[in-house]
Amino acid sequence: MDVAVIGLGLIGGSVLRALASTGHAVLGYDADPATRATARTAAAQAPPAQRWQIARTVRDAVATADLVVIAVPLPAVAGVLDELSAAGYTGLLTDVTSVKEPVRLLVHEHLGGRRRDDDRPADAHPGDGADRRAGFVGGHPMAGRETSGFGAADPALFTDCAWVLCLEPEETSVADWLELAALVATLGARVVPAVAAEHDRAVAAVSHVPHLLATAIAAVAADDPLAGTLAAGSFRDGTRVAATRPDLVAAMCGGNALAVGPALDAVLDALEQARAAVGSADPIGALRGWLAPGSAARRAWPPRAGIPVELPARPDALLRLGRSGGWVTRVSGDRRTVTGVRPAPPDPA
Amino acid sequence: MDVAVIGLGLIGGSVLRALASTGHAVLGYDADPATRATARTAAAQAPPAQRWQIARTVRDAVATADLVVIAVPLPAVAGVLDELSAAGYTGLLTDVTSVKEPVRLLVHEHLGGRRRDDDRPADAHPGDGADRRAGFVGGHPMAGRETSGFGAADPALFTDCAWVLCLEPEETSVADWLELAALVATLGARVVPAVAAEHDRAVAAVSHVPHLLATAIAAVAADDPLAGTLAAGSFRDGTRVAATRPDLVAAMCGGNALAVGPALDAVLDALEQARAAVGSADPIGALRGWLAPGSAARRAWPPRAGIPVELPARPDALLRLGRSGGWVTRVSGDRRTVTGVRPAPPDPA
Repeated sequence: MDVAVIGLGLIGGSVLRALASTGHAVLGYDADPATRATARTAAAQAPPAQRWQIARTVRDAVATADLVVIAVPLPAVAGVLDELSAAGYTGLLTDVTSVKEPVRLLVHEHLGGRRRDDDRPADAHPGDGADRRAGFVGGHPMAGRETSGFGAADPALFTDCAWVLCLEPEETSVADWLELAALVATLGARVVPAVAAEHDRAVAAVSHVPHLLATAIAAVAADDPLAGTLAAGSFRDGTRVAATRPDLVAAMCGGNALAVGPALDAVLDALEQARAAVGSADPIGALRGWLAPGSAARRAWPPRAGIPVELPARPDALLRLGRSGGWVTRVSGDRRTVTGVRPAPPDPA
Repeated sequence: MDVAVIGLGLIGGSVLRALASTGHAVLGYDADPATRATARTAAAQAPPAQRWQIARTVRDAVATADLVVIAVPLPAVAGVLDELSAAGYTGLLTDVTSVKEPVRLLVHEHLGGRRRDDDRPADAHPGDGADRRAGFVGGHPMAGRETSGFGAADPALFTDCAWVLCLEPEETSVADWLELAALVATLGARVVPAVAAEHDRAVAAVSHVPHLLATAIAAVAADDPLAGTLAAGSFRDGTRVAATRPDLVAAMCGGNALAVGPALDAVLDALEQARAAVGSADPIGALRGWLAPGSAARRAWPPRAGIPVELPARPDALLRLGRSGGWVTRVSGDRRTVTGVRPAPPDPA
């Protein structure tokens, strides 16, 4: 495929490198001239068959693209969408932003909604001009790292990583979804089908709220230097992500406020129960009961084994797989079925 | 010194090995015959000059001891204290339990209070029979590990680990405290002087409450299998300690309920502020302000550099050092001064 990657930080740079190394023709663009220069220099050092090119404008980058990957921070997405609109782009479109419902709404607003399967002739292929609109499928590779920038980009970053591809019933083109799923699977990722709002709820619970809790622990402990001396493993690991730059965490959690609010409420409810247990007449016994389910859940994570499954490539079946904790590993050549993995139920402990 | 170690799990076993390897005569005891057999077999494999012995009863273990180290779980401490009382033990006494005020109260109850410096002649030495009571100094090496049992015992476990020795003004014998501090320092530990209640408050903040938060996150995420699939680094590290056995965490947090309650309240207050920020008109801006202090505190931990200090060996000076986040590394031969380290103030970021 001809792919344009807009934004060449850690994730965008890794997508660019991963796609180039698997034989796709890749054009990259970044708003920062220094990043473009770095990416151009790195291309010259890659094996000739795996080289990418760097464009000077978004319009140049997407001119011949079948697929555009938006890999800029959330606040910059709207601007890129406007440039795609101005360029008359009608190919496949995805992004790698960490919230999905807000991006879905931006695409709706700036590109006039998404195409569906019935928007184009049955024999049309992405990018052949038969489509009236860009075909958007929101994406989110769960591949954060402590490092950032193109210099940290790694073509192997997505091996075994969960990569959500959003599938809105009655909205997303299944043909577009399968096209992207097939591509992402070749990068070694686990393709997770999910509705945007369900994705946002899940990452609020497993990523955004944990960032807030880590920061609260670090803030409270900071009042007592003795506590800092006695802090060991549980503090080090439990607060690790509190060291992330506050503006990044604020953008991530605040950008997903609609999902983070209820997820934080659920954790606060659980902690109020723990507080009641601590203050009860038998704190040890009460806490033992309170701790049991969360402790069992953590011991069952990550699921040790998966059950291979083959499914019809239909939205209901794909979303059921995602909701059960499964993922897609391969899309059949005829796009009628997918191969995937469903987590095995935990051992009865 | 002649040392008896009562309880040969990970910590007790490591204390036994560490003291034996630094030339002390060590007698160990464990209530479990299989553990005693394991410890006896291991002794035969140690270099002859570093061998320990295993006694069949607490009374046998402490008969000739200058120092008894209680390394049993909190619920078993009272029974050991009764055996020491029945054996008429009057030497130095310490423990390695993770809460200190409850143990202090148990010693008071079962051994009739602690001796003070004016309880014995100025020229008396620990264990010479001139004391009327055992000289108790509560201790807590911050050296937890995922592993447990004598098989995991490691004489190097305490290298650079913070080891609290409790110093109650108007109560603890400073001579006893310095005797133990000198010994613990030779094991490579950072000796942290602290009042028992202040220790309990500090570990509630940096260890006990983080265990509760980790478990709450794991429990809430468990409701959604999709969340389990998308969980990555922040979930893995933030919930690691939730996998600890619930009965151990319940004993630890419930045994320190008086300090855990207020520490959990402080974290809940902070999280309620975060919740308000998430629900505000400008969640990103509000969260940025909320996140800043905790994030800065975490980046400043652990302190990178320490300032060497020399102090008079007096309770007020020692406790001031501990409260400032410092520790003792050496006790002078004449027991008049200590050498220590005070954390350097964080870089103005």
